Amino acid sequence: MSKRLGFLGPEGTYTEQAALNYDPEAELVPYPSFPAVASAVESGEVDEGVLPIENSLEGAVTFTLDLLIHDSALSIRQELVLRIDHCLVVRPGTKIEDIELIYSHPQALAQCRSFLAERFRDASVAASLSTAAAVQEMQKSDVVAAAIANRRAATLNGAHILLEGIQDDRSNETRFVVLSLNDHVRTGADKTSMCFDFEDDAPGILYTVLGEFAQRGINLTKIESRPTRANLGRYIFLVDVEGHRDEETMKEALDAVRGQVSKFKIFGSYPKHVS
Amino acid sequence: MSKRLGFLGPEGTYTEQAALNYDPEAELVPYPSFPAVASAVESGEVDEGVLPIENSLEGAVTFTLDLLIHDSALSIRQELVLRIDHCLVVRPGTKIEDIELIYSHPQALAQCRSFLAERFRDASVAASLSTAAAVQEMQKSDVVAAAIANRRAATLNGAHILLEGIQDDRSNETRFVVLSLNDHVRTGADKTSMCFDFEDDAPGILYTVLGEFAQRGINLTKIESRPTRANLGRYIFLVDVEGHRDEETMKEALDAVRGQVSKFKIFGSYPKHVS
Repeated sequence: MSKRLGFLGPEGTYTEQAALNYDPEAELVPYPSFPAVASAVESGEVDEGVLPIENSLEGAVTFTLDLLIHDSALSIRQELVLRIDHCLVVRPGTKIEDIELIYSHPQALAQCRSFLAERFRDASVAASLSTAAAVQEMQKSDVVAAAIANRRAATLNGAHILLEGIQDDRSNETRFVVLSLNDHVRTGADKTSMCFDFEDDAPGILYTVLGEFAQRGINLTKIESRPTRANLGRYIFLVDVEGHRDEETMKEALDAVRGQVSKFKIFGSYPKHVS
Repeated sequence: MSKRLGFLGPEGTYTEQAALNYDPEAELVPYPSFPAVASAVESGEVDEGVLPIENSLEGAVTFTLDLLIHDSALSIRQELVLRIDHCLVVRPGTKIEDIELIYSHPQALAQCRSFLAERFRDASVAASLSTAAAVQEMQKSDVVAAAIANRRAATLNGAHILLEGIQDDRSNETRFVVLSLNDHVRTGADKTSMCFDFEDDAPGILYTVLGEFAQRGINLTKIESRPTRANLGRYIFLVDVEGHRDEETMKEALDAVRGQVSKFKIFGSYPKHVS
């Protein structure tokens, strides 16, 4: 039986593309919201769920972080990195010089701002709820229109791709996580994600905590401070380090950190993405 | 002569509201993009410019960070914090039970998802380019419609506010920065923002650098790692610390950091926001 893989829908979004790249054999199940994906994994309705966690168009990524921090017993089992490659998508037969109106998600329009200014000075833009929805609105448009979306959305809707890679910044990548009831077994090239905060904000507590990793030769690959929901003067720290939580040195470091912080949660250990 | 203050337009956005709170006497000048605001400040067309830097609806905040890191000789002169308070805005006379369609920026719709699910199970949603544009589209709608926007957008357009504070998370705040050719003089309760990266990613370099602040009793208030544009395996660190770059201890710390990192840029020192 193939794996059931939930994702933040609708079909044709970058999240679906990331899910397809992760497991082309899986049965993909779209859900309408971040919590709906999480609930489906928790209840066993799907085996795993895919959500954007960094630099995505498809919803504020704070939703995924908040799920991990506050609401969910789920672990990160895998990270996925997808290059965001925007296409100019039209109805078959449309000529580039006739395009009067361009649909997309406002963030996608913003990511193609220079392209639009150079090539479509006289066209109008219209907002859509997702890049996938933009393709459908383009197809129903009364005037000659185009959509900014990914290759998958064009294929799904029988639309034609006029141009590819139209985003202004060519290195635009989005990171996704696969959530599951368990994290990943050790592979030898792993990462561990966690969050913690402090009751006290004396200078140097963060420094001391990071020292538990540094002094054991554990490399930090990401760090972020975010305001806590409850108390706006207080921060929660999100940290990724290299290594698996089953490794002896990592266990020592995690135990040492646990003893010095207030809230502490390990999101999981999983294979490190290699680009 | 009153100060000329550029901001990311259009009128009626949360950025305009932040600019108004900052200086009610200023002449406000809207610009269509992040770089346009920066250019206007650099050329002297306006005295200062207001852009969102954290957790905003009105464009990926990466644009502001990228301006500070890569493209701009501008400094942060002030930080502004605005509570995001979404209103349900209608044409005068509209009854809540007749609303069939709700316009807003997709991120604002996402921030009100539970509210919409409870109160407007049968209504449709439509995307707009900004919360300000949503009010204008609502006013032109063929069916009975509402918009999710701020109080200012309603007032500017002669629309009526049916409900206030409809976002699911009551503590939703957005941080803005005021950019200028110079940063702020010392006030005694200041913050300094900077970025740096490393050629080498050996474990512990970040730890050593943070030690320069910790060992001098300088509190870290924010830290974030972001992938660099050029090299996706490499990170740039964005750090805020308490204190002004003109203070003796801070000068020592900044000099010590400068000696250990590759790229180093001080974005500016400015009064610390007190909520």
